[in-house]
Amino acid sequence: MNYDQILQEIKEEVKIYNQMGAVGSSIPELTKVDPSKFGIHLVTIKGENYSIGDSNEKFSIQSISKVLSLSFAFTFLGERIWERIGVEPSGTPFNSLVQLEYEKGKPRNPFINPGALVIADMLITHTKNPKTEFLNFVRTLTNSDEIDFNLKVASSEKAFGFKNVALANLLKSYCNIENDVDEVLDFYFHQCAIEMTCNELANCFLFYAHEGKILHNNKFILNQSQVKRINSLMQTCGFYDESGEFTYKVGLPGKSGIGGGIVAIHPKKYSVATWSPRLNEKGNSVLGMKSLELLTTKTGMSIF
Amino acid sequence: MNYDQILQEIKEEVKIYNQMGAVGSSIPELTKVDPSKFGIHLVTIKGENYSIGDSNEKFSIQSISKVLSLSFAFTFLGERIWERIGVEPSGTPFNSLVQLEYEKGKPRNPFINPGALVIADMLITHTKNPKTEFLNFVRTLTNSDEIDFNLKVASSEKAFGFKNVALANLLKSYCNIENDVDEVLDFYFHQCAIEMTCNELANCFLFYAHEGKILHNNKFILNQSQVKRINSLMQTCGFYDESGEFTYKVGLPGKSGIGGGIVAIHPKKYSVATWSPRLNEKGNSVLGMKSLELLTTKTGMSIF
Amino acid sequence: MNYDQILQEIKEEVKIYNQMGAVGSSIPELTKVDPSKFGIHLVTIKGENYSIGDSNEKFSIQSISKVLSLSFAFTFLGERIWERIGVEPSGTPFNSLVQLEYEKGKPRNPFINPGALVIADMLITHTKNPKTEFLNFVRTLTNSDEIDFNLKVASSEKAFGFKNVALANLLKSYCNIENDVDEVLDFYFHQCAIEMTCNELANCFLFYAHEGKILHNNKFILNQSQVKRINSLMQTCGFYDESGEFTYKVGLPGKSGIGGGIVAIHPKKYSVATWSPRLNEKGNSVLGMKSLELLTTKTGMSIF
Amino acid sequence: MNYDQILQEIKEEVKIYNQMGAVGSSIPELTKVDPSKFGIHLVTIKGENYSIGDSNEKFSIQSISKVLSLSFAFTFLGERIWERIGVEPSGTPFNSLVQLEYEKGKPRNPFINPGALVIADMLITHTKNPKTEFLNFVRTLTNSDEIDFNLKVASSEKAFGFKNVALANLLKSYCNIENDVDEVLDFYFHQCAIEMTCNELANCFLFYAHEGKILHNNKFILNQSQVKRINSLMQTCGFYDESGEFTYKVGLPGKSGIGGGIVAIHPKKYSVATWSPRLNEKGNSVLGMKSLELLTTKTGMSIF
Repeated sequence: MNYDQILQEIKEEVKIYNQMGAVGSSIPELTKVDPSKFGIHLVTIKGENYSIGDSNEKFSIQSISKVLSLSFAFTFLGERIWERIGVEPSGTPFNSLVQLEYEKGKPRNPFINPGALVIADMLITHTKNPKTEFLNFVRTLTNSDEIDFNLKVASSEKAFGFKNVALANLLKSYCNIENDVDEVLDFYFHQCAIEMTCNELANCFLFYAHEGKILHNNKFILNQSQVKRINSLMQTCGFYDESGEFTYKVGLPGKSGIGGGIVAIHPKKYSVATWSPRLNEKGNSVLGMKSLELLTTKTGMSIF
Repeated sequence: MNYDQILQEIKEEVKIYNQMGAVGSSIPELTKVDPSKFGIHLVTIKGENYSIGDSNEKFSIQSISKVLSLSFAFTFLGERIWERIGVEPSGTPFNSLVQLEYEKGKPRNPFINPGALVIADMLITHTKNPKTEFLNFVRTLTNSDEIDFNLKVASSEKAFGFKNVALANLLKSYCNIENDVDEVLDFYFHQCAIEMTCNELANCFLFYAHEGKILHNNKFILNQSQVKRINSLMQTCGFYDESGEFTYKVGLPGKSGIGGGIVAIHPKKYSVATWSPRLNEKGNSVLGMKSLELLTTKTGMSIF
Repeated sequence: MNYDQILQEIKEEVKIYNQMGAVGSSIPELTKVDPSKFGIHLVTIKGENYSIGDSNEKFSIQSISKVLSLSFAFTFLGERIWERIGVEPSGTPFNSLVQLEYEKGKPRNPFINPGALVIADMLITHTKNPKTEFLNFVRTLTNSDEIDFNLKVASSEKAFGFKNVALANLLKSYCNIENDVDEVLDFYFHQCAIEMTCNELANCFLFYAHEGKILHNNKFILNQSQVKRINSLMQTCGFYDESGEFTYKVGLPGKSGIGGGIVAIHPKKYSVATWSPRLNEKGNSVLGMKSLELLTTKTGMSIF
Repeated sequence: MNYDQILQEIKEEVKIYNQMGAVGSSIPELTKVDPSKFGIHLVTIKGENYSIGDSNEKFSIQSISKVLSLSFAFTFLGERIWERIGVEPSGTPFNSLVQLEYEKGKPRNPFINPGALVIADMLITHTKNPKTEFLNFVRTLTNSDEIDFNLKVASSEKAFGFKNVALANLLKSYCNIENDVDEVLDFYFHQCAIEMTCNELANCFLFYAHEGKILHNNKFILNQSQVKRINSLMQTCGFYDESGEFTYKVGLPGKSGIGGGIVAIHPKKYSVATWSPRLNEKGNSVLGMKSLELLTTKTGMSIF
């Protein structure tokens, strides 16, 4: 497969969409980004790296971090996670407080905000120094010590994150938060404020395509069955209310963030990360979605 | 892969669950079934057939027919289908009338009842003799003239299907039904009342695993891209409010029916059908779900 | 109280609003009305009649009939009505199918469509000739044989009433309709198609202000306690999602219809009917609401 | 009217229900109350006082305070209040976060928690020392300096009020809270923690029955029109999801609190307060509801 050429073609073909969508505005600090940025990085399970555009610039991974925190919690708790969170798509055009209330405080899945808050709570219970240990986990996956939190972004989220404060307190009212609400929120806002490049992000997620093993040392982070399950969750729940659309058009498990990043996995083949800050109305990167649709079309490979 | 032995093992291992769940009671005629029935049939894209138990007994395929009617509509309309129906999982524990009302008469996907009613309406518009032509389509897929409607089941659904009548009229009130409501319902009740054996069902669905081609004559029913898309819909929406659970545990696209049948596809590998009438509280066959979970575990093969 | 002068003043003062709102469009036959029509009729429990404008022209009373059918059912069933219907305001901006589904087929009150359909079902069970007997009941209240159904309106509702068909079938699916769905709908569409003038309507409703007695013969239709209860229901549930607004601004129990009529009761004082076909976005007559607000302001009399 | 005898009869007749219901458990400090307490105090607009049982014992007025804070806000803002809050009953069996989200942060009425939080926010904006000034307002109405906050109850609410914290943050996320969320909550928790006896409560609310004037000095707190409007709000929204039931059975405007108190108003006649800590499943005092139903039945007087 000539990935270099395919990425080149994709870059050309998505150009016509590059004024569509708008930079996410919910976190003021994130609005400072240059909306014209665009990068792709693909890495195969043979360790071949392909990239194009701004693939070495840092961006805020935001909700993409939810896959990593879930995976970290999985290493402690395994299937016990599901006592407090479901595995079903949220499938609701209206916001998750509604659903959380209907379902008595059990979030439908770990990739909507309330689910990620419960995961954050689990990590606080099971680690001594949650932020440091989580950061080390991500650095280990990526094989890079340069991954870090952007503290300005974290505090910008804190200052304007009233809805997340509402969600965390609602979870607490249903006894589905064990620790102090402020501590959970602090961890959560930091987790979302991790910055990566497309290159780092694609490599960080490669173990999901590689049966749970880090490529360079063949060390298992999760076993094959656990990785399969996280991939399946990305497939059904990775794109908020657009998960079906992504599955329909792209046909790969993946996860998006409001920083404009998307990562997708072709099990046993590759991991790919895209970044472009303009989002569609569902909160997913316009060029990222388009690029990945073109990728599976051009390679003729999807999991279906 | 020794499928014969795997099916044998599955049959043994699921025995302990064979008193769990209850036969679906919404259609009186369907309650007459023997709840202890259990069969599996698996057919590979090489044409190898494996079966166990009551795999040659007819049962009512019910909602499984929605995949077939969607596929038939696809042959006429292609992507224009999505002007009137979405591709997102419904993800709601409460019934679909609510959702239909929120979303102004556009069903979230073609596998919930209102979506299937819109598909039925499309087929009526685009065929001269909808019931006959649809039956012929299914017979062609299965390469068997023995497939037929069970008229008693169709009329039992008609007599007690007040909720479907409500849905069809609600769709009509939103102008998302073009034809006469009664005609749409009549087609829909017949479509659901098709009977098949596990053997027939697995072979009927084999073309979804075979890139859109019927195995014995290599004739394309849908192209590769269309088949990929229908498979992805089965993945995200095939099991009502348990689609995430099925994806998480089984990791294959599939579709269930309240007659106790389930069909699942491993793209480029096989198609498999199970039948056991006892349903869990979400309306999916207990033994069927268990069997397919064991199948992907024992073969070590899933799409993720 | 100089009601003549007050009605005159009201007519002048509401003129500035007479282009606001639009004639209800859900029933085609009703759109033929002249939107500039406007009338008021007030009758006191001493039998004094005051009127202004088009108070002697017939209009379709529509949902106002729900108070009359409830009262008729009350004469048969008394408090047993509440085994199948609630007495709480619906308080929902979105339509009643949602609520009906949440509450398992028990309508929140008798003045929303599903509640009125259950009342219609009760009347069919308890009468030999429902339409005739109901019409006679209304004629007796009004002391006039000129009250009748408008058959064109009834059949126009039937032809376009898909949402009501949906509601009736949903109720049937919850076993809260005993009779044939079509028969219930036929009665309901006729009931709503009764025509009255403001004069007739005000006189028809006078017994609610007169402790349950028809004025001219002092015959009790309902006892004092029953009338108090129906008045209280009009207060909390009479104006769909604008019941609170009407209570807040007018301070009298009342009921509106999409034909543009409103009737209101001042217990122990008077009954008043208004008619103007232009409706606000909540489905209530703009000039009617305004007129009644002015009436209680100018008379300085409300129940609060 | 022989109120002494009527209260005596009521006390006897409600005895059979005195084991029904349970003390509200959401605020731990409130569970310490003796569940067998029961008192009634009625005061007419002529200044005649009637009481029975534990009518001189203090209890936590809780949500009853919402009528007082609304009235205080009315003195500053008049009808401008309704720019940020509605006047419609909430009419929902499920909790108010759902509704708040549907309606984009505008609470349906001032008597549900989010509405009261917005009122609290208004008072903080319009006073220098909100807690002191509100307390003085209540003392003036009651003509007693003995009214005070119970600080233990206020801090117990604070410690367990996660749902209210969630609501306040959700309102803030919709920009319907101007001040600091913690300050709003602190005021709200204090407001609810005011303690009164039945005697004090009935006298405090007497001005709502007396056209807005304090009885002993004839000083207007609100004008006649404003009082009418607050009374109408109590009628439609005073009892959560049981407002219709209370209106239907009692036929007077009123307000309940989870401390077991209820106050009701007969405009131009009397104000009456009851207290009994056992609540029904809707959160309203069982004996209080029963007593007031008997009161309007025995006196033959309701507003309808």
